Amino acid sequence: MGTKKNVVAGVDLGGTHTKIGIVDRDMNFYGDKVINTNMNSFNQWVQDVSTCIKDICKNNQDIVLAGLGLGAPNANPFTKCIESPANLQSWANTENKGILDVKATFEKYLGIKTIALDNDANAAAFGEKCYGGAKKMKDFIVITLGTGLGAGIYIHDQLVYGYTGIAGELGHVIVEKGGRFCGCRRRGCLETYCSATGVARTMLELMADDRSIDTPLRNVEPNKMSSRLIYEEALKGCELSKRCFDVTGEILGRALADFTCFSSPEAFFITGGLARSGDLILNPTIASFEANLCFPYKGKVKVALSEIMNKNPAILGAAALAWNELDK
Amino acid sequence: MGTKKNVVAGVDLGGTHTKIGIVDRDMNFYGDKVINTNMNSFNQWVQDVSTCIKDICKNNQDIVLAGLGLGAPNANPFTKCIESPANLQSWANTENKGILDVKATFEKYLGIKTIALDNDANAAAFGEKCYGGAKKMKDFIVITLGTGLGAGIYIHDQLVYGYTGIAGELGHVIVEKGGRFCGCRRRGCLETYCSATGVARTMLELMADDRSIDTPLRNVEPNKMSSRLIYEEALKGCELSKRCFDVTGEILGRALADFTCFSSPEAFFITGGLARSGDLILNPTIASFEANLCFPYKGKVKVALSEIMNKNPAILGAAALAWNELDK
Repeated sequence: MGTKKNVVAGVDLGGTHTKIGIVDRDMNFYGDKVINTNMNSFNQWVQDVSTCIKDICKNNQDIVLAGLGLGAPNANPFTKCIESPANLQSWANTENKGILDVKATFEKYLGIKTIALDNDANAAAFGEKCYGGAKKMKDFIVITLGTGLGAGIYIHDQLVYGYTGIAGELGHVIVEKGGRFCGCRRRGCLETYCSATGVARTMLELMADDRSIDTPLRNVEPNKMSSRLIYEEALKGCELSKRCFDVTGEILGRALADFTCFSSPEAFFITGGLARSGDLILNPTIASFEANLCFPYKGKVKVALSEIMNKNPAILGAAALAWNELDK
Repeated sequence: MGTKKNVVAGVDLGGTHTKIGIVDRDMNFYGDKVINTNMNSFNQWVQDVSTCIKDICKNNQDIVLAGLGLGAPNANPFTKCIESPANLQSWANTENKGILDVKATFEKYLGIKTIALDNDANAAAFGEKCYGGAKKMKDFIVITLGTGLGAGIYIHDQLVYGYTGIAGELGHVIVEKGGRFCGCRRRGCLETYCSATGVARTMLELMADDRSIDTPLRNVEPNKMSSRLIYEEALKGCELSKRCFDVTGEILGRALADFTCFSSPEAFFITGGLARSGDLILNPTIASFEANLCFPYKGKVKVALSEIMNKNPAILGAAALAWNELDK
């Protein structure tokens, strides 16, 4: 009995699905499951997740649940609440006033005290530190290329939250003055170019720029254009699709070179849906990074894909939040 | 005897002059002096500085020298050496191989153990933290506008050195793709616009752009154009000179807005020669900063002039290095 293994639950809250996994410090999984996110009630969702976790633990007599980590939008790691989430408005009611107390509610339904939460990009950085390529690093940056561009920044062997708690908004660094219109109501933000949606926008621009290069993507409605389709065409040899990744990597590499001047990280790790394009996005990013890097940093910064990218990164990142909390 | 006051020596090493001051924790000066930097020999320079410090201490029976801080180009705070300084090549010889051991040499001639050193921009950040507007802040950035643009970044209540030790090279963030040629052999770096030399370059551009606006500066040889002259003309009402500061502030404010996305500092403090232009540079910087800041940070970041700027900042910054070392 004394040799039971400590494990944690990693939970990734999405607008449609919730991913749940039980994992130990050495990245062994003891079970994982994807459930539909119950949009009717936050309390019901916590009960669903808790039941799922208890079921997995019941089947493994040699583990003990030490904590839970949650990756979620609008997560406040300090208050341990989800605050006014735009995509989960149906959970808000007059009682909770849009502030969802993650810690108190999981304590009630799951019966454990160690609860940690943070946004996806920060969870990804904790995941890379705990399980991935950054295990021995004190200064590194994880870039998540999804619908937008997020970042988790490690400095002094700690995640950077800054004065407001919302540091690392690297998707909103302006890389093209007067450039593309961004959801933040400004123009030229990095994430309007370097993200899954950014790649789709670039493809429309490239098709507009040069009609002489044919591609089956000219038959795709702009509303349905996606980085996934462009990736598939690039693999089949489509010149315009390959150029689309080159353009994206050129801008991303330039941005990473600028970020290096700020904190001089040991490495950048790229993750998120668009990172699954692998060398198609990584190679032009590295080429542009090296070409644009200021001389004192040359040869001293690694740019690589996340080492946990293909190992259930959302659950591992969330689990790492719990381990980090346990280490405090 | 038991009530002697602890003081430290702050030393600022310049290519022509060396500034020396003795100061306590409450910013009281017990003496200060400017001597010519002896360019013949590093050892002789250390002896000159040590003699000067001993003379000041001799005249103050109620103080005790607890440490020395040195602000110097190419200072390595970890090895406590000045390494291959471009502007002090005459100090290099076959014996020291261009590595000047500041700690060992001051220990020998001054007889104290606590020696700290760092570059000017980092010393300015330590100075603002110890004596200036950042006393109660854990996350802030000091920007020095001199010949170039330097930065000292505080995160987690510590200065950021990064993996290489040379973080904070914000003068080399690229703000204009394909812009002005920089000493780092790239184009468009922030310091080619926002620095004393940057302002002079902007004035040449403005004169080239619009010949209809007259200014006495059209009679100044480009080689002699300086931020000081432009400042003086702006005070006299010269439209083009005022526009020159507006252009500089516009670019600086945009850059500070981008930096905010990275570390979410509580404040930016601006110092260095160009900062002495006061509102002429500060007002357009703040206007541009507020206009360009991403919404989550609005109203949460202060942009101000250094609060020690007019109080011998080079000596105070160097002294703060010594206090920081004593606090370790």
